[in-house]
Amino acid sequence: MAERHIPPPLRFLLAARRSELHGLESLAVTCELAVHLSALVHALQKERGYSNLTLCSAQGRLPQEGHEQTLAALVQDAVRVEAEVRRFLDGLAAAPQASDKARLLNCIAYALFRLDELPGLRRQVRDVSLPADEADARYTQIISSLLAVVFEAADSALDPAVTRTLVALLNFMQGKELSGQERAAGVIGLTKGYFTEPQKARMLGLAAHQARSFDVYAQYAQDDALQCWDRILQQGQPVERMRDMAQRTSSEQRVDGALAELWFDLYTARIDAMREVESLLAQALARQCEHRIAETRQELADRQLLLARYADHASGRAPSMVFSVQSRPVDTPPADGVGSVLERSILELMREQTLRMQRTDDALNSVRGALEERKRIDRAKRLLINRYGLTEQAAHERLQRAAMDGGLSLADVARQVIDQLGSD
Amino acid sequence: MAERHIPPPLRFLLAARRSELHGLESLAVTCELAVHLSALVHALQKERGYSNLTLCSAQGRLPQEGHEQTLAALVQDAVRVEAEVRRFLDGLAAAPQASDKARLLNCIAYALFRLDELPGLRRQVRDVSLPADEADARYTQIISSLLAVVFEAADSALDPAVTRTLVALLNFMQGKELSGQERAAGVIGLTKGYFTEPQKARMLGLAAHQARSFDVYAQYAQDDALQCWDRILQQGQPVERMRDMAQRTSSEQRVDGALAELWFDLYTARIDAMREVESLLAQALARQCEHRIAETRQELADRQLLLARYADHASGRAPSMVFSVQSRPVDTPPADGVGSVLERSILELMREQTLRMQRTDDALNSVRGALEERKRIDRAKRLLINRYGLTEQAAHERLQRAAMDGGLSLADVARQVIDQLGSD
Repeated sequence: MAERHIPPPLRFLLAARRSELHGLESLAVTCELAVHLSALVHALQKERGYSNLTLCSAQGRLPQEGHEQTLAALVQDAVRVEAEVRRFLDGLAAAPQASDKARLLNCIAYALFRLDELPGLRRQVRDVSLPADEADARYTQIISSLLAVVFEAADSALDPAVTRTLVALLNFMQGKELSGQERAAGVIGLTKGYFTEPQKARMLGLAAHQARSFDVYAQYAQDDALQCWDRILQQGQPVERMRDMAQRTSSEQRVDGALAELWFDLYTARIDAMREVESLLAQALARQCEHRIAETRQELADRQLLLARYADHASGRAPSMVFSVQSRPVDTPPADGVGSVLERSILELMREQTLRMQRTDDALNSVRGALEERKRIDRAKRLLINRYGLTEQAAHERLQRAAMDGGLSLADVARQVIDQLGSD
Repeated sequence: MAERHIPPPLRFLLAARRSELHGLESLAVTCELAVHLSALVHALQKERGYSNLTLCSAQGRLPQEGHEQTLAALVQDAVRVEAEVRRFLDGLAAAPQASDKARLLNCIAYALFRLDELPGLRRQVRDVSLPADEADARYTQIISSLLAVVFEAADSALDPAVTRTLVALLNFMQGKELSGQERAAGVIGLTKGYFTEPQKARMLGLAAHQARSFDVYAQYAQDDALQCWDRILQQGQPVERMRDMAQRTSSEQRVDGALAELWFDLYTARIDAMREVESLLAQALARQCEHRIAETRQELADRQLLLARYADHASGRAPSMVFSVQSRPVDTPPADGVGSVLERSILELMREQTLRMQRTDDALNSVRGALEERKRIDRAKRLLINRYGLTEQAAHERLQRAAMDGGLSLADVARQVIDQLGSD
């Protein structure tokens, strides 16, 4: 199949298809990365939970119950998963870098930087040399740097179906992470026996933000993952009841500190069950990438064959076999002479490819809309940081407080901030 | 400089920068393509103008005045420029294709397909075997396929400053092309001695659409190109007067057919002068690409050096020289121990890179907004084509008529169509 015999327009038609294929192959790698990261996030969430319990126990606020052994096993798990992620990333760093991957690579750099803090953090937890809430915040920062990589993966994906699943995965991971934070916040409050008003507000905020994430997830996920999530939701009453109870506590109305462990176990079972949804989404991603790559490869092969025959035809070797390899639009009966049919067929091929690309683009834009909310919140934070010299954490809290005070969503508050400060 | 000694976060920081550099290098090639295409469009516009005159003369509607010789020379010019474009494209087709170039490559395929029609069209013009307005329409179709490539180039560019100049170039080329169409429409009307009402409306539409294109151009162009355009505008009165005159003609109020040649010459001088603006924009593009590439290369080299020293430091070879290669944010005095300063410096480096990317992104989004209008019009046309089985030309005319009837811009009408039919 000598491609240099193919006329230039058709050569570029093939080059466009090949470029799409490259994009899909690189997307498959990005999806694999997202799946690896979801495993690491899960391991770190478990480790964070037990670190929290261990610190609370060691600081005498909960009975000692062998959390250390469990934690040691979980740390081992997390170290193993992290090693897998790092091996995968080594391969990625060695590969030549496409020009549209700069933001993803930058996010990976930041996540790796954060991951390097793990050994020190673990040492401090083992030595019980930092408060539970500080350990919690540092684990949370590491996890959020990993989620940021998944966000970039979804935002830079060029296939609508795969992007849908990545958006579903990202939102599910976000919801699950907020669940982890709610678990920690609950343990801290219940250990003390009651929640202060700001703690209650934080619990409510976490629950609302979770619900929002899972709603977006449900909008973009496939059947099997949705059914799995429905089963988890149906078993959610105990957690709901304890949430309500937490809201009714006060320094006058305390509950038994031992409820902290019940809450922790209930919530841990729930979060562990969520991991199955992530596995289903990971399978869907692999399936979709594989399918799209196989499809595009086949089309490219068909087209190369078609165009090679066209070249043969043009050089007078095989006059009438040109269109026998493809069925659909090019298969028009030769009515007004081969030349003109040929020309119309090629035009048809180009139109078809252009239309497909435009449809892809429209679909991509509409799926990516789901990522706009987070981008808007990030942008508002950046504006607050620049204008008032806040830290990231303080900027986030200011947005959250404004949302709670005004009965608005974070995204709405972010829009107001951008409208006010957006000229920066 | 052994990069494998550099810790993973910093390796990915470098990989991100390298990915940006690749993007800029590929953008420089795309800009060169846009500049080549602007030369070809200019040559074809001139050829179209004289083909028009030649056909009108040969069909006895204008005095014979040796237009054939001029046309033959112009065809030679266009053939030469086309050969240059094709040589450039051969190089492009041979290069490995980045995954984000599919739409650009597809557009090139379509433009090359259209360019293949030139020899046949020229033969028909030479044989005077097609009407002037049909020849005109066929040249216009070829030119518009070339403009579509420049549009994709602007839309896929990843640098805000370069995108600004590409948007300026694209809009200028669009305005210039509408000028060419107005020149042709004027010749046809004046040859007959008057304009029908639809012809007058078309002339007004072309003038308005031109003004809009040049406004967007003026919004995005640099000083030298703007001054050049101002000089052309100042010499615009004769064309303005003839436009007004054309609007006052009717089958009762005819003008001398010889005015067609005056109109043609005046307008041709104007279009030729516009070519200088395009050259200035081309120079700006080359300068900007070169500058951004040099800057990014230098930063990458600085950073590689910095990080290599970091690696040396980490391995205990050169304890305190780490930050001497870069001045700005990393140059903090070592207050609380080298390790912690180092960590903060790296974090600073990452923040800086992230912020820069976010600013780039915001800027890109705002420049690309200028391309949304055309995308919207294209989308509306596609909807009309799908819904009513119109040809592209018919869809365009329907939009234009609706705009004229409603006193709206094309973009407004497009928005209405999308609102009505957009669910397809």
